[in-house]
Amino acid sequence: MRGFSLNQATTKRWPLDELVAGCVEAGVEALGLWREEVSEYGTEKAAALVREAGLTVTSLCRGGFFQQPDWYDENRRAIDQAATLGTDTLVLVSGGLPDGSRDIDGARRHIGEAIGALVPDAQAAGVRLAIEPLHPMFCSDRCVVATLDQALDLAAPYPAAAVGVVIDTYHLWWDDKVWDGIARAGREDRLASFQLADWITPLPAGVLLGRGLPGTGSVDMRRFAHAVRETGFDGFVEVEVFNEEVWARPGADVLAEAIAGYEAAVA
Amino acid sequence: MRGFSLNQATTKRWPLDELVAGCVEAGVEALGLWREEVSEYGTEKAAALVREAGLTVTSLCRGGFFQQPDWYDENRRAIDQAATLGTDTLVLVSGGLPDGSRDIDGARRHIGEAIGALVPDAQAAGVRLAIEPLHPMFCSDRCVVATLDQALDLAAPYPAAAVGVVIDTYHLWWDDKVWDGIARAGREDRLASFQLADWITPLPAGVLLGRGLPGTGSVDMRRFAHAVRETGFDGFVEVEVFNEEVWARPGADVLAEAIAGYEAAVA
Repeated sequence: MRGFSLNQATTKRWPLDELVAGCVEAGVEALGLWREEVSEYGTEKAAALVREAGLTVTSLCRGGFFQQPDWYDENRRAIDQAATLGTDTLVLVSGGLPDGSRDIDGARRHIGEAIGALVPDAQAAGVRLAIEPLHPMFCSDRCVVATLDQALDLAAPYPAAAVGVVIDTYHLWWDDKVWDGIARAGREDRLASFQLADWITPLPAGVLLGRGLPGTGSVDMRRFAHAVRETGFDGFVEVEVFNEEVWARPGADVLAEAIAGYEAAVA
Repeated sequence: MRGFSLNQATTKRWPLDELVAGCVEAGVEALGLWREEVSEYGTEKAAALVREAGLTVTSLCRGGFFQQPDWYDENRRAIDQAATLGTDTLVLVSGGLPDGSRDIDGARRHIGEAIGALVPDAQAAGVRLAIEPLHPMFCSDRCVVATLDQALDLAAPYPAAAVGVVIDTYHLWWDDKVWDGIARAGREDRLASFQLADWITPLPAGVLLGRGLPGTGSVDMRRFAHAVRETGFDGFVEVEVFNEEVWARPGADVLAEAIAGYEAAVA
């Protein structure tokens, strides 16, 4: 594995130029970006900012949400934005059930087809689509892809260079099949991104913002890092934490803790 | 399947004697009870109340919480209480990780061993231990058994008459492997209890009380009822919903809606 990458979501309130300066100051070589923040700042301007700072962009979050009527155009824009930013990885959060639907198999099938439709665009742009399985508590409203095996099955029909998967400890730690899944992702050459966040309770209302910095919760981070390293994964390791209390703190302090959590995990 | 059973947790604020009268009035033949409420009322007195009303007790919730130091004595008391109430099914919520532990495999192994230690007591009392897989969002603090396959694997070393599993739609609906798991539970003769609750969002803080009455959410109840019926399951179907808003309503109204939800599922 190549080293630490700060996912922008971890320090959501840190303005992008300060975040980039803070990363350089801390010796961080890479960061993961989010579409909304990048668009607000200006995509070309953001691309220049990180390029001039010498930072690698490890991923752009997020494409997906395939249950929305405009999914095709929206994902094409996301692919273009990833290419502009110079990252080879677009993370897909695939979306939940369509309004009023209980057809989870149908929703999953649609996601597979939608990804297939995007593969030529992604290949043309040099961007890999990275399917992220989310924790099953997000299944109805955010992502019907709930396990690593489901993500790998969805990726299987397409070239590994075009479609990969994301392993995020927060979403997968509860699954006794995840260790086999990580090895399978390695064998099938699908491992596009590795993200660290910890599981802490009690969960807040809405459950989106309940994640902990690595080391603060129930996840055996070292076991994950070991399993991912065993696959031969040579990418950066992102720390990606959504948490209101973390966001309220100074970006540099959070960055230092995120690095410490990463180091404890990969040591 | 034999018919509808009201799990007491659905109408948590309905006093037991009123609940029993309400069930009789509504033509309900069975109910599931909870230890805390039964103990408060008096176990012998509760047993007499339901017996005299002609009601079947489909289950007692809950034993388990095997990470607590007094798990053995506490579960023996739960087995005795189940026998006194005349139910053959004690639902086990197995407990989360021990404080400060990240050893999820170890926690699951311990649960298997603890269940094994209780089998002779359960057999002597004529009570079946029913392992309930809970939604993965409860994995750290309430139940490390997160899938039906895990529950079946834990049950496997012990006689099927002594150790079974619970299928609760709320906990399992997101799992694409659940349909194979239900068929497996049937083949292995492990299906001890079938419970209906629906998945609704947004989840409340703490996530425990976020369930919906059957038909109000994302779960394909008919598919579950069909799959369970296909196994030859001949027990009652419990409706078990934890929800503050449901609890605030009159018991008889909730009971009527629970019956309607059940009927739509099994129709």
